[in-house]
Amino acid sequence: MSLMEALHWRYAAKRMNGKKISRGTLDTILEAARLAPSSYGLQPYSVLVVEDETLRERIRHAACDQPQVSECSHLLIFAAWTEVEGRHVDELIALTAAARDLDPKELEGYRQSLHAAIAGFTPEEKQQWAARQAYIALGTALTAAAAERIDASPMEGFDPPALDDLLGLEERGLRSVLLLALGYRDMAEDRLAGLAKVRWPRERFVVEWSGA
Amino acid sequence: MSLMEALHWRYAAKRMNGKKISRGTLDTILEAARLAPSSYGLQPYSVLVVEDETLRERIRHAACDQPQVSECSHLLIFAAWTEVEGRHVDELIALTAAARDLDPKELEGYRQSLHAAIAGFTPEEKQQWAARQAYIALGTALTAAAAERIDASPMEGFDPPALDDLLGLEERGLRSVLLLALGYRDMAEDRLAGLAKVRWPRERFVVEWSGA
Repeated sequence: MSLMEALHWRYAAKRMNGKKISRGTLDTILEAARLAPSSYGLQPYSVLVVEDETLRERIRHAACDQPQVSECSHLLIFAAWTEVEGRHVDELIALTAAARDLDPKELEGYRQSLHAAIAGFTPEEKQQWAARQAYIALGTALTAAAAERIDASPMEGFDPPALDDLLGLEERGLRSVLLLALGYRDMAEDRLAGLAKVRWPRERFVVEWSGA
Repeated sequence: MSLMEALHWRYAAKRMNGKKISRGTLDTILEAARLAPSSYGLQPYSVLVVEDETLRERIRHAACDQPQVSECSHLLIFAAWTEVEGRHVDELIALTAAARDLDPKELEGYRQSLHAAIAGFTPEEKQQWAARQAYIALGTALTAAAAERIDASPMEGFDPPALDDLLGLEERGLRSVLLLALGYRDMAEDRLAGLAKVRWPRERFVVEWSGA
């Protein structure tokens, strides 16, 4: 199956059958998320993996009672860092120097420009910026899941403060942004399964710019 | 090349060599973006395709003089709708009914719930929500480009009001959110080409949740 066939095959399954994803396949999807690009390379979010059924039942209550939260194999929670500070920049510079076998001094100008960038955000801008980076990883993970023929149901429809309370995310410096249920579609129960995909027509979605 | 190999291969090329992408490959990447999921299925953004070199030179001035804006083959501009209103919901319902051969009356409850959802946003929330949907498509398009061995350089580093003025986007009900330069990396000129990829280690990025 080509990647485009996979993208046509995928849909946001609202009912799943509880079948488990293999660890290897789950790792592939998580790795795709990890490899997603981010602004300044800072990846200011984490991906929580929840398999425990009891906990997923409780999360479902904070997620508009959406069945796929408990019927999936694994629930991913994309959670943005509540703080993005100079120390994170310094960690990234150290990581970069190590990965590329460089003297950190060679990255000093880069380090200072990242510090300035982070300092230039208002708190609200920083929060929005961090959350948006997680969406890039969501798009990447969704696509990787489809390529593996794993169903992936992305959800914004949940109560982030309630979920953050339930998991104690604030103490971990995290704020939930997105959910992604991974598993297998329940063809019998999901009334959306097998329905035609609905997207704006290409001529509405794409604007071919014909000069200034 | 597997999708995971493609994701390792990709990086945000800062220099490109001007070589043109075939129309078919460009269409594949645009179609991947179009197939990306979005909140309520509303896809509240458009993707502008700019090939014209003179215009890309002018856009480069509004984009921190980043060389890949003029050295790429095609520049994509992801632009969120400035207004998302009830009429868009009604259009989506009509599209859904046509795609699935349904009587629109069968979608009346769904239509009303979407109207309520859209009406529940503050203007600022709606703007952020619309912009975030474009990031899902960015992640999808980036991955599709990598699968086609096309370089894709995502950019938040530009002056959105200046770009919107240059292209008259406000009059079209659009607000630029993201740029994506598509083309071919310039191995000789890009000092980042061939360097090791830097990402947070898996144990930092992924949190395996071990119960409540």
